[in-house]
Amino acid sequence: MGFDLEQAIDVLERTPGTLRVLLENIDGELARGTEGPDTFSPFDNIGHLIDGEETDWMPRARIILAQGSNRRFEPYDRFRHRARNVTRTLDSLLDEFARLRAENLRVLVSWHLTDAQLHLPGEHPSLGAVTLRQLLAAWVVHDLGHIAQVARVLAKQYRADVGPWAPYLPVLTDHEKPRS
Amino acid sequence: MGFDLEQAIDVLERTPGTLRVLLENIDGELARGTEGPDTFSPFDNIGHLIDGEETDWMPRARIILAQGSNRRFEPYDRFRHRARNVTRTLDSLLDEFARLRAENLRVLVSWHLTDAQLHLPGEHPSLGAVTLRQLLAAWVVHDLGHIAQVARVLAKQYRADVGPWAPYLPVLTDHEKPRS
Repeated sequence: MGFDLEQAIDVLERTPGTLRVLLENIDGELARGTEGPDTFSPFDNIGHLIDGEETDWMPRARIILAQGSNRRFEPYDRFRHRARNVTRTLDSLLDEFARLRAENLRVLVSWHLTDAQLHLPGEHPSLGAVTLRQLLAAWVVHDLGHIAQVARVLAKQYRADVGPWAPYLPVLTDHEKPRS
Repeated sequence: MGFDLEQAIDVLERTPGTLRVLLENIDGELARGTEGPDTFSPFDNIGHLIDGEETDWMPRARIILAQGSNRRFEPYDRFRHRARNVTRTLDSLLDEFARLRAENLRVLVSWHLTDAQLHLPGEHPSLGAVTLRQLLAAWVVHDLGHIAQVARVLAKQYRADVGPWAPYLPVLTDHEKPRS
C-alpha cells in the first residue's frame, strides 16, 4: 500500500476522539495505572502525545520544508510531560491534545504538500537522513502505537482479576519488558 | 486494584464508541489490512467482537448464574464471523456491535449482581473452573486487547513507509508471530 497523505491525515484526525472515548472521565486508578516502573500510564500517554504536537512532528516538518543549512532535528524529550503536567487532570489533557492536533492538521493541510516536498530530507539526531514522507508516516504509526499502549495498560490493571484466563489474553503479556 | 463491577461496565461501554471513532468510514485497504496469513483485519476484529456478544460472554454468564447440573461453556468459535459477514460493510458491523453491546450491558446491569453471585463457578471447556467475576474481567481485557490489536494492525499497514524509523516504533514489531 503506497503512502497517501490524505489517508494519513484521516488517521491522525481520529486519535484525539478515540482516546477521548476510551479515557474521558475514567476511574482514577485506571488513568494512573502503569505496566511497572518507568512505563507510561494512560495519563502519561496523553502528555507524551501533547509533547509530540508541541515539540516533535510539526517542528521537524518545518525544518525539512525550510531546507536550511542545518536540517538536524532537536532530540525529542520523552519525559517532558512529567514535570509539565503535575497539576493537570486527564480530561484537561484530552482537551488540550485535541486542540493542538486540530491546529497542527489545519496547518499541515494548508501546506498542500507536493510529492517533491514529501521526498525532501531532514536529519534525525540518531537515525540519520529521513524524508518528510517518512516523518508523517512515523507520526501516524506513533499515534496508533500509543492507542495500543493505552488499551494494553488499561487491560493489565485487570491481570489478577481474570484468573485462569490470562494465557488466552495475550495483551496481558505484551511488553513484559518496557519497550515504549 | 480490586475488581469493581461498575468500573468494568464503564470500560465495556466505551468499546463500541472507541472503535467507531478509530474505524468508521476508514479507507478500505486499512479496514481489510492484516498482519499476515490467519490474522485478523480491523473488519475481522469487529466481527469477532460481535461473535463475543452473541455467543460468548453473556451466554456463559447465564450458564454460571443458572447453576444447573451442566455448567460447561460451549467452545467459542474464533472464526464464526468469517462466513457470517461476507456481504457486510465495516460500518454496518460497527453499528451492530454497538447495538448488541448496549443491549448486553442493559441486561448485565439489570441483574444487580451480588458478591456471592460474582463468585459462582462455571466450567471453561479448556481452562476448567472459572468464576463469573473472572469471566467479566476477561471480557474487559478481551475488549482492550482487540482495541490494541486494531491499532497495531492499522499501524503495520504503514511499516514500509516509515523507513529508518521502524526500530523506534515497537508497535510495528509486536506479535510478529500471530498470538491473537
